Amino acid sequence: MPLKVVVQVSDLNSVPQALKSCRNLLSEVPDAVVEIVFHQTAINALVKGKGFDDEIRGFVERGVVIAACRNSMRDRGIRSEDLVDGVTVVNSGVAEIVKKESEGWLYLRL
Amino acid sequence: MPLKVVVQVSDLNSVPQALKSCRNLLSEVPDAVVEIVFHQTAINALVKGKGFDDEIRGFVERGVVIAACRNSMRDRGIRSEDLVDGVTVVNSGVAEIVKKESEGWLYLRL
Amino acid sequence: MPLKVVVQVSDLNSVPQALKSCRNLLSEVPDAVVEIVFHQTAINALVKGKGFDDEIRGFVERGVVIAACRNSMRDRGIRSEDLVDGVTVVNSGVAEIVKKESEGWLYLRL
Repeated sequence: MPLKVVVQVSDLNSVPQALKSCRNLLSEVPDAVVEIVFHQTAINALVKGKGFDDEIRGFVERGVVIAACRNSMRDRGIRSEDLVDGVTVVNSGVAEIVKKESEGWLYLRL
Repeated sequence: MPLKVVVQVSDLNSVPQALKSCRNLLSEVPDAVVEIVFHQTAINALVKGKGFDDEIRGFVERGVVIAACRNSMRDRGIRSEDLVDGVTVVNSGVAEIVKKESEGWLYLRL
Repeated sequence: MPLKVVVQVSDLNSVPQALKSCRNLLSEVPDAVVEIVFHQTAINALVKGKGFDDEIRGFVERGVVIAACRNSMRDRGIRSEDLVDGVTVVNSGVAEIVKKESEGWLYLRL
């Protein structure tokens, strides 16, 4: 059974390193099922035109779920249509993470 | 059975965002059992008069356990009587976290 | 059965606090089996002569596995022979962490 991993990215400054770490994870464990949850300031990385569009789309094309926290979006006036295509919106990033953990997903905080 | 979540807060600068995330977690999963462990520089947020008194007391009144790491307190000369009322002191924040995990609590690092 | 704990250290600035927290963990749970994975900028702490040699060796002598992420080493031109004696190299720090989690190790992100 493949590893299922839910990844938390909180800080916008950590996004480039976090995405690199996710690519490394998929290189080492190619059949891992991965969902990356962006919340707090990191939510800004999912907005179109912020420099992460191609990377985000590349993950989505590989089957990685990219989840945006609606609470973090609301705090910053970010609308669904502002997000890079293919991003999924969840009500609460932290609730999403612990629900996945409760279903047996492994947790990684980058 | 309700989700049980042990939350780690390490960095004083992250405390406002971390407390907001905890409120969002409780809004989305109202019956979650939550313990928030403060250690390292975040321990200072539990001292009376540092601006977090009302928020901390609000969590305690909702049944959230607010745990202060005794090692972090000792390093900074913080005594039990300096803490906001209702805060619980644990010997070691990190040991508290892994013990809770070993008892099936889900882990969230904010 | 002793607790098994895999610890993630990502940020070089957090290394002194992280090592102190690991010592506190071992003081409180002396029979814990601990592996500390260094990746991203924290990898630099494992290079000889960066000021952490004695602390790292102290952990290794206590049976703690100190793991260096090869991806993080490669990005920074760090070779195996540059590392403090006793450090173990793993292909990918994040993959190491989730594999340990999948084997029942508890996760701690410092």
